[in-house]
Amino acid sequence: MGKKIAVVLTDYFEDVEYTDPAKSFKEEGHELTVIGAEKGKDVKGKQGEATVTIDQSIEDADPSQYDALFIPGGFSPDMLRADGRFVAFAKSFMDDEKPVLAICHGPQLLITAKTLKDRGVTGFKSIQVDLENAGASFQDKEVVVCQNQLVTSRTPDDIPAFTRESLKVLS
Amino acid sequence: MGKKIAVVLTDYFEDVEYTDPAKSFKEEGHELTVIGAEKGKDVKGKQGEATVTIDQSIEDADPSQYDALFIPGGFSPDMLRADGRFVAFAKSFMDDEKPVLAICHGPQLLITAKTLKDRGVTGFKSIQVDLENAGASFQDKEVVVCQNQLVTSRTPDDIPAFTRESLKVLS
Repeated sequence: MGKKIAVVLTDYFEDVEYTDPAKSFKEEGHELTVIGAEKGKDVKGKQGEATVTIDQSIEDADPSQYDALFIPGGFSPDMLRADGRFVAFAKSFMDDEKPVLAICHGPQLLITAKTLKDRGVTGFKSIQVDLENAGASFQDKEVVVCQNQLVTSRTPDDIPAFTRESLKVLS
Repeated sequence: MGKKIAVVLTDYFEDVEYTDPAKSFKEEGHELTVIGAEKGKDVKGKQGEATVTIDQSIEDADPSQYDALFIPGGFSPDMLRADGRFVAFAKSFMDDEKPVLAICHGPQLLITAKTLKDRGVTGFKSIQVDLENAGASFQDKEVVVCQNQLVTSRTPDDIPAFTRESLKVLS
């Protein structure tokens, strides 16, 4: 059965890190809701290729209504983690051990939520030391699946592996 | 006497966090050299207000030729710290206890260089947990001066305090 996936997104996201996995998730019957600062507002990818309309304001978002969390990369996660509402939202999925799918800079939000201690992760090279300092075990691999719950990848090149393993965890 | 200040910069820097302090530093007789990936290339600020030509390639940059390091914020520091040459360059200034002036996301480069343990710092809200995890003592103030060597600030609003304290450390 399809899962309800919350996506947290704002400007400067890495375009294909949202669009490609989102397309695959929908094709497999999952339902995506894009959550941002303001419902109805458009957010734009940093490559200028993708524009996405926010489905639900973080103010109205209830983690209990979703089965999984997807955090695309780019500079979006850095901006989201400056807002405590997104940090608390992400923390809820980690605390409840629901699937969390984070690519590139996505794990930054999980660092600020203080949820990565003793977890196996990967991520974009620039955040490697941050992940290690957060107590995570960093692995330089195209995808890392930790406890059948947390899926992380490094860059757009890893999208096929990221999507494949995410779909397994969602199934 | 004027100091030789190295600036490390790439695209998506926070425009005024380079242009405003740079103007003040030059007015006080200091000499700035902008160091980036490729000499002669233009890099652009994220607000589209400032374009800066790279004076020297990181490949040719020798920290011993400079008295101080200036790291403007925005997304530039995140991109620089994915390149080990910039990490090693920044580490050299910290190891030699030369003035290091870092605003907003600037301290990200110092985290990756593993140079912030037991240092007093501030920075943009999004990197607070990263700074704490790196062993730094985070203070939510417009400017923090640590051991008359490391000057950090949070946002463009802090530029006057950042510039004032930076000029003291450079004098």
